[in-house]
Amino acid sequence: MAVTLNANHLKGFVMDHELCGIQAQLDAAHRTLHEKTGLGNDYLGWLTLPTDYDKEEFARIKAAAEKIKGDSDILIVIGIGGSYLGARAAIEFLKSPLYNNLKKDTPDIYFAGNSISPAYVNDLLSICEGKDISVNIISKSGTTTEPALAFRIFRDLLEKKYGKEGAKGRIYATTDKARGTLKELSDKEGYETFVIPDDVGGRFSVLTAVGLLPIAVAGCDIDALMAGAKEAQDALCDPDVEKNDCYKYAALRNCLYRKGKAVELLVTYEPCFTMMNEWFKQLFGESEGKDHKGLFPASVTFSTDLHSMGQFIQDGSRVLFETVVKFKTPKSDLFIQPDAANFDGLNFLSNQNMSVVNEKAFEGTILAHTEGGAPNMVLEVGGVNEKELGYLIYFFEKACAISGYLLGVNPFNQPGVEAYKKNMFALLGKPGYEDLQGALLEKLK
Amino acid sequence: MAVTLNANHLKGFVMDHELCGIQAQLDAAHRTLHEKTGLGNDYLGWLTLPTDYDKEEFARIKAAAEKIKGDSDILIVIGIGGSYLGARAAIEFLKSPLYNNLKKDTPDIYFAGNSISPAYVNDLLSICEGKDISVNIISKSGTTTEPALAFRIFRDLLEKKYGKEGAKGRIYATTDKARGTLKELSDKEGYETFVIPDDVGGRFSVLTAVGLLPIAVAGCDIDALMAGAKEAQDALCDPDVEKNDCYKYAALRNCLYRKGKAVELLVTYEPCFTMMNEWFKQLFGESEGKDHKGLFPASVTFSTDLHSMGQFIQDGSRVLFETVVKFKTPKSDLFIQPDAANFDGLNFLSNQNMSVVNEKAFEGTILAHTEGGAPNMVLEVGGVNEKELGYLIYFFEKACAISGYLLGVNPFNQPGVEAYKKNMFALLGKPGYEDLQGALLEKLK
Repeated sequence: MAVTLNANHLKGFVMDHELCGIQAQLDAAHRTLHEKTGLGNDYLGWLTLPTDYDKEEFARIKAAAEKIKGDSDILIVIGIGGSYLGARAAIEFLKSPLYNNLKKDTPDIYFAGNSISPAYVNDLLSICEGKDISVNIISKSGTTTEPALAFRIFRDLLEKKYGKEGAKGRIYATTDKARGTLKELSDKEGYETFVIPDDVGGRFSVLTAVGLLPIAVAGCDIDALMAGAKEAQDALCDPDVEKNDCYKYAALRNCLYRKGKAVELLVTYEPCFTMMNEWFKQLFGESEGKDHKGLFPASVTFSTDLHSMGQFIQDGSRVLFETVVKFKTPKSDLFIQPDAANFDGLNFLSNQNMSVVNEKAFEGTILAHTEGGAPNMVLEVGGVNEKELGYLIYFFEKACAISGYLLGVNPFNQPGVEAYKKNMFALLGKPGYEDLQGALLEKLK
Repeated sequence: MAVTLNANHLKGFVMDHELCGIQAQLDAAHRTLHEKTGLGNDYLGWLTLPTDYDKEEFARIKAAAEKIKGDSDILIVIGIGGSYLGARAAIEFLKSPLYNNLKKDTPDIYFAGNSISPAYVNDLLSICEGKDISVNIISKSGTTTEPALAFRIFRDLLEKKYGKEGAKGRIYATTDKARGTLKELSDKEGYETFVIPDDVGGRFSVLTAVGLLPIAVAGCDIDALMAGAKEAQDALCDPDVEKNDCYKYAALRNCLYRKGKAVELLVTYEPCFTMMNEWFKQLFGESEGKDHKGLFPASVTFSTDLHSMGQFIQDGSRVLFETVVKFKTPKSDLFIQPDAANFDGLNFLSNQNMSVVNEKAFEGTILAHTEGGAPNMVLEVGGVNEKELGYLIYFFEKACAISGYLLGVNPFNQPGVEAYKKNMFALLGKPGYEDLQGALLEKLK
């Protein structure tokens, strides 16, 4: 089991000697990362997480998931950014993008606290009517505006429905191990708590309690998820670009960036991977997009988006390259029966599995797009399951760290996210922001 | 009612005289469009659609919607590209992105035939078990692979469940008025048919039966939708850039493109607008992305994506600008109660509506991003309802046509979409593609 990089379709876009040319920089990035001497070296917990995660907490996560499965129709997961995308992406990938609509013996899972739209909260509240609910609030500090606001609302709902005592047993807080508002409140109220480690940033946190509790509630095998990540941790340690597809991927995307490509388009042929695309966009966009540098991360789900973005990719501005995540074995299959009348002329597709047609769409597209001038790489993944997902997550995380060091940025901070927050606080009249408020109101005139 | 362009935040990015500089080109684009002398002038039916649509058919659409509401738990809408995105986007915008999960007196609506993933079809089939179903198949020819395959599957399901006779009354075909496989089959079987006009391309078709039937089934007011579009048709005819915000938008995005911006990011603060973002991406990407030209269209939903793409937008490569679609009146609101303990320190947000906080997030973000070097325009829309949506759809369609002519491309074709199809057919062994098949297999070795 592994993620394999197929770079055959880069011929004519990246020369073989370019990989030799970048090897010394890869070596340096590898040392910087593993010797923990680089920018952001306080946030390298994810690097060894698959082996040194907290086994006692892991068992508690599984127990909590069982309790929630037993006493809840709905789990509301409150979090934003890295405290939202990983869990949702994993659940949609492993179960279904239609998870909440399927008949199943696990709770529906809805995500809240990731926007400030009242309409969305009102819809969620109406869905919760008459249902048994648990809440997983995920926030390091407990004061991030979006999740804190949502937590006020859903905590109030639970306390009204179950009483303060009953609500206690239905609120699970994933937060700092010792400090912060949410940790204090949880200790005071007696909520069960799980830990967001100090040395794992939000976008690298899906394999901590942040992701694991919701993923387990959906009925996914989190042991297999961690085992897959561990395989990647063990496998992706050789700095030689020809022996490490994770580093090769980082190197090739860097080559394409340096020769002028502005956009990396992550491509899937499975609707269940669409939210993983979003997870990827945060991981790479937030890690690389700084100091006026970085590839703009975008994504498409084919063949759906071949009928929307396909024209641009085939023949628009030559600013992009594609990275296709391709699964060798489909999650499920469907045999195409021949139609006696063959009214639509599609009998040439019949008497075979639908996944074969999807495969040929992939092959046909990659030949068309590269012919049109859009470079393509393929990350081949074995199948759609927990173990492969764990491997893929770690693969992307490490590729992202190496990519950041190749680019010369700190892959683990996100200073730019504070700018809008500061302005928003000032405009909302938060105490201490009075001077800024005046200046901003002037600009808005 | 109108869509108003606020360009105040472009100061320092686009100079006032640039609009004067582009006025002559706008005049030319306006004439080219209205005198129907330009590239793609066979596809201008959308331009006058809000006044000259088929009123008899419109009444039949409403009647069919009522029948479906009365006899179906689920409507399966089969279509891809423009036969998929518009209806889904309008329903999620007007009703909810959680429409299928809400308690309601209208059918659930699922979209099929927009991918070749067997896992997705299998999920849909399991959701359909034990439910009453109708199908709306939308395809001009009836032979497009994705929808044709899905139609085979769901038609079979209906015929097994209701018999051939019963299925007939539950299948609605939106297709060519006279020709094509689907039209022939429908006439033979006796399905009710609706028309995809010859002079309206897929991505401009949401206000034809293509979009209107599913939108009406969801319980939306399609009269108001058309009325809003008509207001836009009447309002957006002045070629003077200072008197026509639709043209001003087209002009400004062209200015930004010509000074090196590669990506236009459509921004919303409402989760219900997320699929409208996708609709926009097809409209502009497929219209402009040709001859190695065009802005790459991308999208974000804030504040969600401020915690994923926010860092890049604030401080990454300066390759993008933002176009924010902002609603003056929220769809619904929620009063933020103060919390006696104020444990999270958020009482400064309380005693006001949540929409005010969302508004301040918008203001704070636009000031932060422009300060960081990302140009911003704002399209201000009155509210979240059918009439405003009709106006906005027409606004974008016309802005797109003008944009295409400013860019010097045919805004109404999509020749690049054929390349992958041809390859796919060859690889699947479609009769007549034998020579190409050999060449492609060689390249895949």
